[in-house]
Amino acid sequence: MQVYMDNAATSRQKPDVVFKAIESFYKEVNCNPGRGGYSLSLEAGRRVMEARESIAKFFNLKQTSQVVFTQNITVALNIALKGLLQEGDHVLISGLEHNAVVRPLTALKKYRGVEFSIIPTDPRGRLDPADAQKMLKPNTKMIVCTHASNVMGALLPVEELGLLAAENDLYFVVDTAQTAGVLPIDFEKLHASVLTFTGHKHLLGPMGIGGFCVKEDVARKMLPLYEGGTGSVSDREEQPDFLPDKFESGTLNTLGIVGLGAAVKYLGEKDLNILRVHEQKLTKKLLDGLKQYSKISVYGPQDETLQTGTIALNIDEVDNAELCFILDQEFGIMTRPGLHCAPIAHKTMGTFPEGVLRLSIGHYTTEEEIDYVLECFKRIIEAI
Amino acid sequence: MQVYMDNAATSRQKPDVVFKAIESFYKEVNCNPGRGGYSLSLEAGRRVMEARESIAKFFNLKQTSQVVFTQNITVALNIALKGLLQEGDHVLISGLEHNAVVRPLTALKKYRGVEFSIIPTDPRGRLDPADAQKMLKPNTKMIVCTHASNVMGALLPVEELGLLAAENDLYFVVDTAQTAGVLPIDFEKLHASVLTFTGHKHLLGPMGIGGFCVKEDVARKMLPLYEGGTGSVSDREEQPDFLPDKFESGTLNTLGIVGLGAAVKYLGEKDLNILRVHEQKLTKKLLDGLKQYSKISVYGPQDETLQTGTIALNIDEVDNAELCFILDQEFGIMTRPGLHCAPIAHKTMGTFPEGVLRLSIGHYTTEEEIDYVLECFKRIIEAI
Repeated sequence: MQVYMDNAATSRQKPDVVFKAIESFYKEVNCNPGRGGYSLSLEAGRRVMEARESIAKFFNLKQTSQVVFTQNITVALNIALKGLLQEGDHVLISGLEHNAVVRPLTALKKYRGVEFSIIPTDPRGRLDPADAQKMLKPNTKMIVCTHASNVMGALLPVEELGLLAAENDLYFVVDTAQTAGVLPIDFEKLHASVLTFTGHKHLLGPMGIGGFCVKEDVARKMLPLYEGGTGSVSDREEQPDFLPDKFESGTLNTLGIVGLGAAVKYLGEKDLNILRVHEQKLTKKLLDGLKQYSKISVYGPQDETLQTGTIALNIDEVDNAELCFILDQEFGIMTRPGLHCAPIAHKTMGTFPEGVLRLSIGHYTTEEEIDYVLECFKRIIEAI
Repeated sequence: MQVYMDNAATSRQKPDVVFKAIESFYKEVNCNPGRGGYSLSLEAGRRVMEARESIAKFFNLKQTSQVVFTQNITVALNIALKGLLQEGDHVLISGLEHNAVVRPLTALKKYRGVEFSIIPTDPRGRLDPADAQKMLKPNTKMIVCTHASNVMGALLPVEELGLLAAENDLYFVVDTAQTAGVLPIDFEKLHASVLTFTGHKHLLGPMGIGGFCVKEDVARKMLPLYEGGTGSVSDREEQPDFLPDKFESGTLNTLGIVGLGAAVKYLGEKDLNILRVHEQKLTKKLLDGLKQYSKISVYGPQDETLQTGTIALNIDEVDNAELCFILDQEFGIMTRPGLHCAPIAHKTMGTFPEGVLRLSIGHYTTEEEIDYVLECFKRIIEAI
């Protein structure tokens, strides 16, 4: 039996429409979607536009042009942070941020004098927005927060932080890498300046595509991270200042975009709340099963209503890398050990530097698979 | 009949191995290539490594790690320019550069006080390296040059400019968007600090993948444009400083990488000189045929030994956008009109702001197609 429990890294199985969209584009079109030109190039442009529309609808945007495509959410976060933060600005972040936020901020600290502070976050991932309010300084310009931890799934109070940001005229940047496709996300309700997303996790698109949704007034103030040919206003040596071209230079990842578009259209036709009920049921079952064993330490909320289907654990006296190896080689269960590119999250959880083993449920995980995983853990515990 | 003459924008037809590699990765692996973990994740990493090795071999690099993947060559050029140029630096560029070079430099001029000068380039695309030498200033730090014009195919003397850069301790950044896969390119012989490449044109990979090859000592001095999770040294909040991780953050475009890897392996097993002879033969035939008509102005070298298979033209009294439309709708010939994201190249050619119609030959263009294109131009000219 092969059980894929690494959905927090990427979703392995996708709906059939995803590969069909990729294959159809490749075999029937495969032209560069420039503006104007011949009909097949226009068809390429039309397919990219359809994907953009699906995403705009999915996140409830006012304008399709507010969707910007990037290689991945890391690049999207870099654009938001580096495009908006200036010398001497102060930023608040949660204690569960990924290195996709912490490393750009560390670089901005070094090269642009930007300082950042971590809002107190307890080992189970709880963060009180009132604490964030107390930390505001005259030079605070932005709050950056992940919607859910990529290590142990804890959901963070992004709506409350968004309100706080709105009340204090701060930029609010949300990382939905772990929640887009899991929970309904409404861009307007989040009060987000920039909502960053990854295409290949719970949104079920292919790897190599992500992006962000941006408020139009924020986009006007945000500088692009890279400039180049956009197929628009080609007479100008300056980057265009309209969306999405301002932030989309060079040839797009058309296969990634049409694949993601098909995936998001598929998800948009489902009721995310029903998918979430399924995920919560499996999460509860897995959590309950694992917590039976005194030798297993489970981290995070340990409550399916307060987290995604991502679970962090350690077994006493077993190194998590070794545990990952055993699960893979002996039982065919795919998991991820270590620090998951989130050292500050592990510091918050008290699992730094040894890390944890991460199991992450996805849309295609079944109850039988959870039963099997629990049976394997039983055998491992009994064998210690 | 359908004739694709827009290979300078992207190659539409690719060898079968490209889609096979994409499909095989998607259907058999589709895991995130992290370091370590379970065997399918390792397999994903192995396939990415194979692609990197094929590219390193293709450009004759010393180390596989000198190959860095980006979404496209525009991002690669932005990394090279913004990662190396500092306040007050001066840069020399050719008169044929694409906006992928000119727009980042225009932004650097505005925000970092970087100045740039254009090496005199005549309307046929000739540039004398001796002129570049005369333009060197104490603050000159870099020469950036496209290997061939994306508008009318003129080849530029990159080896001589590379020597000049080496002799004067300047960075040399080469844009091979139009030549990689067309001419043999040896990284060492070019004296390039950074060789940027696009995957989806004559290298025959899919859209959404490009990158650069970089000298190790240059990479040490070059700052990344974006930082984030790399799957390496995850205990650190600083970006790793080793190749390729320093410049590759977030999830890679795995489908793009394996597709490009298969394409480059395929090309590496061919003799590029033989492919070039085929391209030159077709280019000469097309040039000779077009030059018969006094109403057609052909731009650029008009000599197949001095250019790629990209040809720029205008027909008297016919707008190039209209000509493109007629060729597509009446004859099924796909071309690209306008300015091709290269306003300074058009200024050099004397075709700004009206632009030209561009026909671009690729690896899969046949002699019959060229005959057909010429027959169609004959009919258009006769109908005027």
